[in-house]
Amino acid sequence: MAQLMDGKAVAARVRAEVKAAVDRLQREHGLTPGLAVVRVGEDPASKVYVNGKKKAAEEVGFNSWELHPAEDITQDALLKLIHQLNEDPAVHGILVQLPLPRHIDPDVIISAVKPEKDADGFHPLNAGNLLLGRPATRACTPFGVMRLLEEIGCEPAGKRAVVVGRSNIVGKPMALMLLQKNATVTICHSKSDLRREVEGADILVVAVGVAELVKGAWIKPGAVVIDVGMNRKPDGKLVGDVEFAPAAERAAYITPVPGGVGPMTIAMLMRNTLEAAERTLR
Amino acid sequence: MAQLMDGKAVAARVRAEVKAAVDRLQREHGLTPGLAVVRVGEDPASKVYVNGKKKAAEEVGFNSWELHPAEDITQDALLKLIHQLNEDPAVHGILVQLPLPRHIDPDVIISAVKPEKDADGFHPLNAGNLLLGRPATRACTPFGVMRLLEEIGCEPAGKRAVVVGRSNIVGKPMALMLLQKNATVTICHSKSDLRREVEGADILVVAVGVAELVKGAWIKPGAVVIDVGMNRKPDGKLVGDVEFAPAAERAAYITPVPGGVGPMTIAMLMRNTLEAAERTLR
Repeated sequence: MAQLMDGKAVAARVRAEVKAAVDRLQREHGLTPGLAVVRVGEDPASKVYVNGKKKAAEEVGFNSWELHPAEDITQDALLKLIHQLNEDPAVHGILVQLPLPRHIDPDVIISAVKPEKDADGFHPLNAGNLLLGRPATRACTPFGVMRLLEEIGCEPAGKRAVVVGRSNIVGKPMALMLLQKNATVTICHSKSDLRREVEGADILVVAVGVAELVKGAWIKPGAVVIDVGMNRKPDGKLVGDVEFAPAAERAAYITPVPGGVGPMTIAMLMRNTLEAAERTLR
Repeated sequence: MAQLMDGKAVAARVRAEVKAAVDRLQREHGLTPGLAVVRVGEDPASKVYVNGKKKAAEEVGFNSWELHPAEDITQDALLKLIHQLNEDPAVHGILVQLPLPRHIDPDVIISAVKPEKDADGFHPLNAGNLLLGRPATRACTPFGVMRLLEEIGCEPAGKRAVVVGRSNIVGKPMALMLLQKNATVTICHSKSDLRREVEGADILVVAVGVAELVKGAWIKPGAVVIDVGMNRKPDGKLVGDVEFAPAAERAAYITPVPGGVGPMTIAMLMRNTLEAAERTLR
């Protein structure tokens, strides 16, 4: 039976590390990191996510602000708001909760956030610096996965890592971070022979949002399985993108859903914001 | 026996397309694309490369300028030169020939080129936009490989593409371009079990700079083999990163070395500069 990778516990540890660093920043430099969260309109899931982020920000000792313009805010007015946050020295991290209303182009908004305040690591300049192996703010979810791997002492070098899903916020940056750690990395998607690729994976990261797409029988014995998915089945049960029970019989390590990758995303957001504040001292 | 992918002929076709577009631009808009090439010091290989680029620029009807500061130019003075080119409306594409002397940080110089004039596609913002699937100026060598694949009617979707090498200028952007065309993409490097990965490749791109590293016997029968390498053997012979003769016995298509990918790089540089000029009309 696989060992569980307890994202909740690791995330709590990351938050405690951030809190200790915040205490030090305040003591030594009188500086309190500040996170501004922009939530447009009334998407109910966004409200839950933003509350989780605000709660974590308070726990680690950040200043935090929620800006909550109405659904019908114009793109120009939202850009103006972003520019104000860009210019505000008390704000070190800016997060624009997605999705945005349909009349607003998310690419335009994400690109408008100053790269050094881009807490999510979504700005093209941060993406580019990640690709080029330069210092960059890293997308929170794959950054959290790397930390989970570290916690179990998994050394990616020379291993075959298979990433299923190629989103801008998980799959593609995940592949690059694993590559940076010297894994042989394969990126799969809907056109791939999924079973074949999964069967060869020493490290498997699945982020597609399709309930139990990856069958337990495909898992290589001894593999490390990271399930980024979170899907609600008709019976109300939350499941990942991997068939958990049969996968857990074959894997060496596996993330539970929920309680695996989810909490790590928010914890790494705190870390990104802390680092943005620290950079202002240099 | 594999069919040869004639990069020289395809590159000539690309240059002819660019020339036709330049003629149209001049006729309809009085606009002549301009390419500025910056060559620092006296690296002999750089001189050869730059001459090839200038020749191609003349052939397609661009204005072109070679700026040739001495080896001991300071980084600040070089930055000032780049800024002048950035501001010059006659210059649409800027290329800084690498390598630069050791006292100059190439990352700083590359980042100083205006992204919209970055003819090489090396600026982090262009890298990031490529990663994110947004419009971007593409690195010339992988962009040229994509054109070679198109020319033979190779459709990457659903195929297994293996990229050997993970440089910023070939391997990583190559992987992203193949991914964008829906290949299942694996990136290999010195820590990989190369033979195993190569044996599974329907499309193989090798860019490591090690003479005949990839053995012909590893090639999957019917594969498309793109050899970006160019190495001089002790006997003076130029060879690629793939053992050519035995690979050609198994592959369906293969690039010769020289005359394969090399000419494509310069042709795509012309195309990038043309597109930069066209963008100024929008």
